[in-house]
Amino acid sequence: MRMTKLFPRTRYGEVGAAMTAAHSFLLKAGFIKQLAPGSYILLPLGFRVWRQIQAIVWDVMESHDVQNLQLPILQPQELWLKTERWDKYTGTKVMFETTERHTGAKFGLAPTAEEVVTQLAAETIDSYRDLPVIWHQIGWKFRDEIRPRHGLLRCREFDMSDAYSFDRDQAGMQKSFDLFRLIYTEIFQRVGLTNCINVQADSGAIGGKGSSEFMAVSEEGGEDILLTCPTCNYGANAEKATSVVPTPTPQSKPSATMRLEYTPNTRTVEDLVKLFPDLDATRMVKTIILTADEELGPSQSYQVAVCIRGDLEINIIKLKNALSAQSVEPAKPDVVRAVTGADVGFAGPIGLQNVRAILFDRSVEGLINILCGGNKTEHHFLDVVPGRDFAAPECYFDLHLAVAGHTCPECKMGLLQESHGIEVGHIFMLQSLYTDKMGATYKGEDGKPHPLWMGCYGIGTTRLMQAIVEQNRDKDGIIWPVSVAPFRVEIIPVKYDNPDQRKVSDTLYERLAGRGIPVLLDDRESLQGGAKFKDADLIGCPWRITVGRRAAEGIVELRNRRTQEVTELGLEDVINRF
Amino acid sequence: MRMTKLFPRTRYGEVGAAMTAAHSFLLKAGFIKQLAPGSYILLPLGFRVWRQIQAIVWDVMESHDVQNLQLPILQPQELWLKTERWDKYTGTKVMFETTERHTGAKFGLAPTAEEVVTQLAAETIDSYRDLPVIWHQIGWKFRDEIRPRHGLLRCREFDMSDAYSFDRDQAGMQKSFDLFRLIYTEIFQRVGLTNCINVQADSGAIGGKGSSEFMAVSEEGGEDILLTCPTCNYGANAEKATSVVPTPTPQSKPSATMRLEYTPNTRTVEDLVKLFPDLDATRMVKTIILTADEELGPSQSYQVAVCIRGDLEINIIKLKNALSAQSVEPAKPDVVRAVTGADVGFAGPIGLQNVRAILFDRSVEGLINILCGGNKTEHHFLDVVPGRDFAAPECYFDLHLAVAGHTCPECKMGLLQESHGIEVGHIFMLQSLYTDKMGATYKGEDGKPHPLWMGCYGIGTTRLMQAIVEQNRDKDGIIWPVSVAPFRVEIIPVKYDNPDQRKVSDTLYERLAGRGIPVLLDDRESLQGGAKFKDADLIGCPWRITVGRRAAEGIVELRNRRTQEVTELGLEDVINRF
Repeated sequence: MRMTKLFPRTRYGEVGAAMTAAHSFLLKAGFIKQLAPGSYILLPLGFRVWRQIQAIVWDVMESHDVQNLQLPILQPQELWLKTERWDKYTGTKVMFETTERHTGAKFGLAPTAEEVVTQLAAETIDSYRDLPVIWHQIGWKFRDEIRPRHGLLRCREFDMSDAYSFDRDQAGMQKSFDLFRLIYTEIFQRVGLTNCINVQADSGAIGGKGSSEFMAVSEEGGEDILLTCPTCNYGANAEKATSVVPTPTPQSKPSATMRLEYTPNTRTVEDLVKLFPDLDATRMVKTIILTADEELGPSQSYQVAVCIRGDLEINIIKLKNALSAQSVEPAKPDVVRAVTGADVGFAGPIGLQNVRAILFDRSVEGLINILCGGNKTEHHFLDVVPGRDFAAPECYFDLHLAVAGHTCPECKMGLLQESHGIEVGHIFMLQSLYTDKMGATYKGEDGKPHPLWMGCYGIGTTRLMQAIVEQNRDKDGIIWPVSVAPFRVEIIPVKYDNPDQRKVSDTLYERLAGRGIPVLLDDRESLQGGAKFKDADLIGCPWRITVGRRAAEGIVELRNRRTQEVTELGLEDVINRF
Repeated sequence: MRMTKLFPRTRYGEVGAAMTAAHSFLLKAGFIKQLAPGSYILLPLGFRVWRQIQAIVWDVMESHDVQNLQLPILQPQELWLKTERWDKYTGTKVMFETTERHTGAKFGLAPTAEEVVTQLAAETIDSYRDLPVIWHQIGWKFRDEIRPRHGLLRCREFDMSDAYSFDRDQAGMQKSFDLFRLIYTEIFQRVGLTNCINVQADSGAIGGKGSSEFMAVSEEGGEDILLTCPTCNYGANAEKATSVVPTPTPQSKPSATMRLEYTPNTRTVEDLVKLFPDLDATRMVKTIILTADEELGPSQSYQVAVCIRGDLEINIIKLKNALSAQSVEPAKPDVVRAVTGADVGFAGPIGLQNVRAILFDRSVEGLINILCGGNKTEHHFLDVVPGRDFAAPECYFDLHLAVAGHTCPECKMGLLQESHGIEVGHIFMLQSLYTDKMGATYKGEDGKPHPLWMGCYGIGTTRLMQAIVEQNRDKDGIIWPVSVAPFRVEIIPVKYDNPDQRKVSDTLYERLAGRGIPVLLDDRESLQGGAKFKDADLIGCPWRITVGRRAAEGIVELRNRRTQEVTELGLEDVINRF
């Protein structure tokens, strides 16, 4: 393509201060343009990259006999009622909905497609002989994000490769799940993600038992916090991670009795540590009052308390899962006062009654002679012994947030390290969660119907574009991997109005294009060398051919965008390089 | 691909009696499956065809320097308010809408994209030096159809290739418009439409001055009626077509006076011709009362009367355009009674007052001594002279429906012929209709802003799939053109469990696939020859290789699906054919 035909081209006026490098490069170089918050136009350059990402995804899927198809965007409400997700998805404001005016029928705008494919499975899969069935599509998805942000990472409208497997039993499901781990690894390698790790993840609204995320590691652009063990293979999203926490020095024997003390200005654990220098935070128990919402049915909120060791924080996602709640958040101050009779900061398990439940984190197990809130403003209990001074819990939960420095929960040796990543893929084992509800069965050898075992798998193809840039860039711009580059090579005549340079550039352009090489020719006469080089570095084609002062001799420069290595070559040689 | 991996495969149970051959073949052969009325899943075979159609479209666009991009589906309401189309599109129930719950912002689901691209043009086009700019995308479109029907032809959700051109003046717009006539002709030829004609069309809700449709001619499957002249190049959609109507014998002099006659049982022109055998229908004037709705603003209906010669019918689309109305339909009987004081069938222009306007079709011009309704039940006026007996119209309109047998309006020689077609493409000259409203200008050589001249162009890519089948089929199934076939060749071992046949089939499959030939191998052991051949004819790959009793000798049969010609060939020969 000729640069004078490419429109719009690079622009420099649109980037904001808070943007990551990848996001701002994509905007500045003219790959994307925002239409509305969380909604982007893929401009000609971005379109070319995106289409190549799609082609790689389709190709890998097909090479593993996955069946490519295309599902509608408007999904009938009736399917979502069958799985009991309509209220959940519209109630939490995740799913956009629309109404067919002529009939009043409601539709959700695909946020995912479990319902539609499970219906397809129910209608088409007959027998165990048909299995496994694995379907894949690439299609636009919609989520009513509260705060769309970070460019292509958190969008209202985004493109997704989503696949769904149907098997006869758990072993089959596991096999399909493992196949997708392989497929995804292959895809991420082929599109040029150099640092992509697979971590345990929370399954969120998709549900099922066990899910695993593929994370493009990026300290600057990563939205998610990852915890990995340098000793073993353990890795998890911080939302999901567990850890072995440092144990406090055990107390040899229980105190004689607990006591209530006046503790002025002690709303936080830090304040208390100052007030009681001999008392470590690991011997304090924080009690936090939270408000949760029911997952299903008419939304009704209730209060719970969580007791956790003073040196740890609550992982809200884990708490939400433990409660099967739709949402959980710290209770408002007036609610805390109503529940505990005290200001925020002084809640404690002793005598606490106006909550649906008190949940104890594992970190509290075995502690004695602890400090906890007095349910009285500016008062705490000291030397408290659980089981004696308040009812000992029947069970403990894993509710604490794992952080760097905690011990790995698998090998129990390495100390967890923190990094940041962009979620580029997520694979789920759904078992028969959806197929049971939608009556999707197969006939076994016994002639009887059995539920299908299902898995689902997703790659955000538009966000993948930004993740690739996060991992392939320098200070000047993008460095596209060859496999997804908008053009393999850009030809830059330093001065296109110089007859020698024009002739050589045109010849190169036509011959390379004639060989099917995607090639961009910067044929602008209004710009010269430096300005064109700057644009070329920003756009980031893997190779640049500079046609300059030695054009008359038939000599040009071939430059590698990544290594910045430059070679002088004759015309035939440079053509033969491609 | 192996047939045992392809899923779902051919199915026979789903077709309805009223379906066209193309629709039922696509369903039976497993190319598509309905999810909801007007909404189809593209199954693996359909997906492959659709992706090849898309590839051809992108390729042709790129070869003409059209810039491919991708626009969002959710279109902000504010853009549609600027062009004053929000009320029109949501009011006529054409556009689906949705609301962002967090902000209350409204969005339309792309039925087309003039607003979004015009906004992009306004934000990116600076100067005359940027022009022309032509953008193209392929994306899903949504229309809240009253009655989705005819398979992929009239869908609630469908894929469309839509392009938009921006030029500096009318001549530029015309050039871009002509370019798209060329591009579309090339695309339709490449996808294998053998009989595709270009006709004048009504611009509908898109508006602008002048539009032209590409029609895949199909007597069985065509939804639109086309009128073409065998003598010159004239062709038009019946919605748009004009014609020269047969002229009646002129009346030499006006009658002395008109008279009102009792005409029992004469609701129709046919009844009147029976009652007055000497009076030809061309000397009668029908007066039809219709109810129209305002195009913009709060919907308000009003009545109009149309006077037209007795042998002709009204073209409602033309009337709607003449009135700039949102909708027009025959008035209900009680409205007719209220307006005329008579039952339906007796309206006339004499003394008619309770209508906003009386519109006269051109066919009425110059008639004298006519018969018309008496505005009194079972009464007609005879020997009426316009201008004497009622006010002569100031102007006449082209409101009649052209039909086969009328004279061509261009060459005035040929008699129009009627055929049926599927609209596969539609190109529009929009002038500055949208760019004026959205402030999309360019800076001219004079340094001042000038409005951009716009064109827009659309191909229904999913309906194109069905149109291709309409023109490429026989009684046994589909005959795919090579360019869009799901597989170029299907290998059929008569008995896959025969070791010789299996070996030859597998070898052929691997070697052809290795050459990059899309190949399908019917490796089912549960079926034999005849049943497999039946499926193969239905699916319609251009070539079939039958591996049968001469497999052991290395001899196979190559069969052309279209000509049904069969050749016996050795393995190497058959491979070299591809």
